[in-house]
Amino acid sequence: MRIGHLVAEEIDHEFAPGLRAKCWGYNGSTPGPTIEVVEGETVRLYVTNRLREPTTVHWHGIILPNGMDGVGGLTQKPIPPGETWVYEFTLREPGTFMYHPHYDEMTQIALGMAGMFIVHPKRPRGARVDRDFVLMTHEFRVDVGAKRPNPNSMNDFNVLTFNSKAFPGTAPLVMQKGERVRIRFGNLSPMDHHPIHLHGLNFKLTATDGGYIPESAQRPDTTVLVPVGSTRVIEFSPPEAGDWAMHCHMTHHVMTQMGHDAPPMIGANTKNLDRRMRALVPGYMSMGQDGMGGMAEMDMPVPENSLPMRGANGPFSYIDMGGMFTVLQVREKASTSKGWYEHPAGTIAAKATTAQLDADGIKIDKPG
Amino acid sequence: MRIGHLVAEEIDHEFAPGLRAKCWGYNGSTPGPTIEVVEGETVRLYVTNRLREPTTVHWHGIILPNGMDGVGGLTQKPIPPGETWVYEFTLREPGTFMYHPHYDEMTQIALGMAGMFIVHPKRPRGARVDRDFVLMTHEFRVDVGAKRPNPNSMNDFNVLTFNSKAFPGTAPLVMQKGERVRIRFGNLSPMDHHPIHLHGLNFKLTATDGGYIPESAQRPDTTVLVPVGSTRVIEFSPPEAGDWAMHCHMTHHVMTQMGHDAPPMIGANTKNLDRRMRALVPGYMSMGQDGMGGMAEMDMPVPENSLPMRGANGPFSYIDMGGMFTVLQVREKASTSKGWYEHPAGTIAAKATTAQLDADGIKIDKPG
Amino acid sequence: MRIGHLVAEEIDHEFAPGLRAKCWGYNGSTPGPTIEVVEGETVRLYVTNRLREPTTVHWHGIILPNGMDGVGGLTQKPIPPGETWVYEFTLREPGTFMYHPHYDEMTQIALGMAGMFIVHPKRPRGARVDRDFVLMTHEFRVDVGAKRPNPNSMNDFNVLTFNSKAFPGTAPLVMQKGERVRIRFGNLSPMDHHPIHLHGLNFKLTATDGGYIPESAQRPDTTVLVPVGSTRVIEFSPPEAGDWAMHCHMTHHVMTQMGHDAPPMIGANTKNLDRRMRALVPGYMSMGQDGMGGMAEMDMPVPENSLPMRGANGPFSYIDMGGMFTVLQVREKASTSKGWYEHPAGTIAAKATTAQLDADGIKIDKPG
Repeated sequence: MRIGHLVAEEIDHEFAPGLRAKCWGYNGSTPGPTIEVVEGETVRLYVTNRLREPTTVHWHGIILPNGMDGVGGLTQKPIPPGETWVYEFTLREPGTFMYHPHYDEMTQIALGMAGMFIVHPKRPRGARVDRDFVLMTHEFRVDVGAKRPNPNSMNDFNVLTFNSKAFPGTAPLVMQKGERVRIRFGNLSPMDHHPIHLHGLNFKLTATDGGYIPESAQRPDTTVLVPVGSTRVIEFSPPEAGDWAMHCHMTHHVMTQMGHDAPPMIGANTKNLDRRMRALVPGYMSMGQDGMGGMAEMDMPVPENSLPMRGANGPFSYIDMGGMFTVLQVREKASTSKGWYEHPAGTIAAKATTAQLDADGIKIDKPG
Repeated sequence: MRIGHLVAEEIDHEFAPGLRAKCWGYNGSTPGPTIEVVEGETVRLYVTNRLREPTTVHWHGIILPNGMDGVGGLTQKPIPPGETWVYEFTLREPGTFMYHPHYDEMTQIALGMAGMFIVHPKRPRGARVDRDFVLMTHEFRVDVGAKRPNPNSMNDFNVLTFNSKAFPGTAPLVMQKGERVRIRFGNLSPMDHHPIHLHGLNFKLTATDGGYIPESAQRPDTTVLVPVGSTRVIEFSPPEAGDWAMHCHMTHHVMTQMGHDAPPMIGANTKNLDRRMRALVPGYMSMGQDGMGGMAEMDMPVPENSLPMRGANGPFSYIDMGGMFTVLQVREKASTSKGWYEHPAGTIAAKATTAQLDADGIKIDKPG
Repeated sequence: MRIGHLVAEEIDHEFAPGLRAKCWGYNGSTPGPTIEVVEGETVRLYVTNRLREPTTVHWHGIILPNGMDGVGGLTQKPIPPGETWVYEFTLREPGTFMYHPHYDEMTQIALGMAGMFIVHPKRPRGARVDRDFVLMTHEFRVDVGAKRPNPNSMNDFNVLTFNSKAFPGTAPLVMQKGERVRIRFGNLSPMDHHPIHLHGLNFKLTATDGGYIPESAQRPDTTVLVPVGSTRVIEFSPPEAGDWAMHCHMTHHVMTQMGHDAPPMIGANTKNLDRRMRALVPGYMSMGQDGMGGMAEMDMPVPENSLPMRGANGPFSYIDMGGMFTVLQVREKASTSKGWYEHPAGTIAAKATTAQLDADGIKIDKPG
């Protein structure tokens, strides 16, 4: 018998340096702790409710007695505030599962209540993996200046996260070239199926929350679509060392909090606008007439507790992405993984020399 | 030769007790009748248009002569109001197909015009199934007080349906533990790929509107993503009796009509608001400061003909979900399927006793 | 060594006859030129930046040295305006890849910067194909009267495109009945996973940007869901000649620019509205009381440079779709592909005769 204890509670959560909000989670964090057990084990899981409304816990994907399924009203009374309830069941099948509330779902999940539940097989199948990561995708609406995410948001999320962290708050995934690596994605986003793209490799989808995918049914991909309410397990051996981006490919999901709402300024003549604005705001300068990339790193004053237009400093220059973005740090030897990747000479895109252009017959016309 | 007759017409449709609207459908219902024929048969399908604008019928997924494909302007003139036209073709391949208008698609599909078209194989493939369900996902925008769905809605749907019914208007799926069950999903939602999650089991995807999936390519899942304009056929044997939830996992798709638009109130101090509101609305009480689960079952007065914040009474307490939600009633013996599941003793999540907590060494700290 | 040269620049782009906008692309077009090389070749690709902000090029899906991956800040400094940089790498694996900027992604991709990158295998796998198409899905927000797409749009796209063209600007795909046809879809839409539905056939998914799908894992479909940031390769042999529709099945993605924003008028009595409007706009006539199909072909005056409610003339009558729509022109012999399909006698849906109705016992009730 394995004993566990989840405490559902409001927490003070940092999405990224500079942005905090009151979220809801388990045991002090969002997502809650990853539960890891072995196939065949029986678990007794206590759940204490420290929210101000009832809750339940649903064990997503796990085959268990109906009364342990955690659907408020349908399979149990919801757990009142202040009480501790107990779930008990045996893990019959190995797999990559999740847990989340099944009471006031829209609110409780939107505020961050979610976790992964890994059931390791008694006898591992397939090749042994050297690295085994879990990563939950999520999306929040946090208005600038708000204390809490808005749980009613339906299609205007602005804080996009891996394990409830927005880049540069996300953790890099460290691995060695040629190692066998597994990433277990779980998506309890309220509304979006996230297409997570990995640079520098291709992978196979090996399992879902329904079980293992037989080898005959596996297919290669570089972007894994993780539908809402699903887990997707991928495996690969990185063929090349480097700092490889991994991110949601929906372009607004690698933006930061204020990026989506800017007015379109490309090509605008802002001289008059700026003059009038300066009468109101000394030093005002409108941005984005040529594009928005440079806005990320400008040192503009931003509202307190917000992620207006920021990514992070990278090894070459500013990385203008935020949100669902992180880096696979693939190294020749894992022990050398400190800091940014050191590129072998001559392997970095660079300004073309006149000699190169001439030798290859490239003519650069003057723009018309 | 099999003869059939579809009448395209406006209908008075009940989404759930308490919410009716003028929809468009076939033969008095949305979705229209499920057409069932056998591979190799020839069908002659009459279509009478009782709408006030032209229409056509497209036979989605079926291989047929180009002139029978039902695309207005491209393969035929649209059927004028008041006329009856005839389609005739032979079903060469078995499968799970659909039908819908291909004229003024945005409007006619949004108002409910859709149906399933099943072509049974001459010689069944794979294991014989004991149960065979069809279930169409759909989404509507019905503003409170509106007589009709708004066909122009693009991303703010608020009445989410299985077979054009919103929970508690949806029908439960009754089956026996261990039986072989097939569910054929068809998605003619205007805009959303719905991830339908099944509790208490895992399944295999066995076919699409393109045909059978060979066993080597089948994979297990607990959530089936049904893309817009697709059918997905799943098969499983439920391993556990019980009342198992089946629902779209997008959290706003298990909400009811007014749930999405509520302002975020969590943590708000509403004393002043309430005082001011009561000057306008006697008895006003703002809701949701602690979460929104309890709002579902409050007996607040609601506008006529609306589903403001309601789910339904469940066996344990109020189920606070609506929309794309229903229950798989899995019973030890199908004949005992009346009413809610009766749980064996000791198999329901319950309040922990002090003895349990002590024996397992669980310490409940007082909240700080 | 293969030498190539991409010029990133603003272009004057026509989405469809009647709608032009300033977009961003490569070498004068959006999408940019399709790059085609052979497995094992080394490419040296020059990139000239003629935008007014920096850019990079990321080679999506291709395994290459980290410094050639084109992620601004992370693997290189972004290319400043006016400069020409050079990328060099060897194509180790065949496949269907893409290229796009990885700097100011939200803006640059939204304005049209994207292209396909095909690496043909040294030794072809599987059956030889007779036709090999590439088709990129995209989505833009172009407000009526605007000079440029709005790159900040997140969920209200109104110009939906195949190869940056909206129907009737899209090119038909010409092929012969029974030929082996491949279509390589690439989706660099900012936000939507497009379900592309093909009429008149079913196909198998044979590859992604991760590589070939083994035959054991292939499955049939009639709609291919192309997630954002993915390629999907399908193959089929069209079994029937005809003009077969191919389109995104999300109903708003076959609408034109103004179609989405119309107010719901179905069933409205507009007499008073019309009278009042005519005081302001002589000749005003409100539309859509009976449905919206007829609005497409009305010869209403429309704002300059816009696609208000238009599809195109078809062989039978007006086709009321726009956006992500085109036609597979499948002919008995490819050389006879000029003009619309000529249907064999008796293979087109037609008005039922009284004799037919009587013979088949179909009773047409008068509407109540």
